[in-house]
Amino acid sequence: MTMIKATNITWHEGHVTRETREKLLNQKGALLWFTGLSGSGKSTIAYTLEHALVQRGHLAYVLDGDNIRHGLNKNLGFSAEDRTENIRRIGEVGKLFVDTGVVTMTSFISPYRADRDGARAIMGEGNFFEIFCDTPIEVCEQRDPKGLYKKARAGQLKGFTGIDDPYEAPLKPEMVIDNSKCTPQEAAVRLIELLEKSGKIPALKG
Amino acid sequence: MTMIKATNITWHEGHVTRETREKLLNQKGALLWFTGLSGSGKSTIAYTLEHALVQRGHLAYVLDGDNIRHGLNKNLGFSAEDRTENIRRIGEVGKLFVDTGVVTMTSFISPYRADRDGARAIMGEGNFFEIFCDTPIEVCEQRDPKGLYKKARAGQLKGFTGIDDPYEAPLKPEMVIDNSKCTPQEAAVRLIELLEKSGKIPALKG
Repeated sequence: MTMIKATNITWHEGHVTRETREKLLNQKGALLWFTGLSGSGKSTIAYTLEHALVQRGHLAYVLDGDNIRHGLNKNLGFSAEDRTENIRRIGEVGKLFVDTGVVTMTSFISPYRADRDGARAIMGEGNFFEIFCDTPIEVCEQRDPKGLYKKARAGQLKGFTGIDDPYEAPLKPEMVIDNSKCTPQEAAVRLIELLEKSGKIPALKG
Repeated sequence: MTMIKATNITWHEGHVTRETREKLLNQKGALLWFTGLSGSGKSTIAYTLEHALVQRGHLAYVLDGDNIRHGLNKNLGFSAEDRTENIRRIGEVGKLFVDTGVVTMTSFISPYRADRDGARAIMGEGNFFEIFCDTPIEVCEQRDPKGLYKKARAGQLKGFTGIDDPYEAPLKPEMVIDNSKCTPQEAAVRLIELLEKSGKIPALKG
């Protein structure tokens, strides 16, 4: 360590630790892995939570199809192999975000248990929260926000999760949310409580 | 928007913007792309800068071989195709970090101009800073921190940049650093000035 008087900085050459960044941010890195059928509320709840966290002064970020499928994973298709690689890369990016101290949400159908378990395995204990959006498929299909169920039913879309491709429900999710029985706001309140109880963000006083 | 009285949160369902996160962090996202030969000082300077930024209360993160090659890019080798994909993925992850508002450093030899220009192209104007560590190869080889030059000279390592694989120097780097003529600390001071002048971090008062 040397001191440069002009700037009063103590110099180091090793990595800054995750703990140092977390102290700076007054929060701890966490990965909330949303999984569930298309239309089950994953992204809506994730964005609602993101806004609530930022309003409380916390740094949060959502990884979803918009910023992943058109960027990092734009060279992947929808074969079984590519789907697995898609989820693997998202898990690895999530790990980097958590190391940075960010409360990170991933919003992908992620239908296969083995792929999600792979993401959980690389994260380390206490960093991974599997959030199962268990909204009945009838409700999801009625919403059909992207018109995908309609196409799948018409046979214009093959291998669509819940129609002609399986969704493997989580066995031990950290939280189950049925978005047909609660609003995104109510779900976000529960998730904030989960983050508080896990020591990821401090509880509000008063 | 609805108000939940218990928590006094205003609810939104869209993305939180980059600007909102940057305001929260009191900094702007930036990608400092370090490039240069093995032993040219890239990682040492990047870590030194990371520490200095965190001491000033800024969130910074270094992407390097340690956290990328063993994670996100562990399924890539060293063929020309894989090297390009390696740099492409790093650029895409850098873009996500910058969108989060993080001052991000990438530390990779990244010898090919087209690959670096690809990373620059996806970042958008004003977000990408190419930092060319132009330390003479004789100095790099003398340092040989990982013993790689020795192996390359002995023919035990093929396609090593600077020995039997080309390094294409940047044509218009945002900064050139010759680490044989300055300490990592002096380099970090120059980089902090660059970040201040670019409006990425506020200048210190007094």
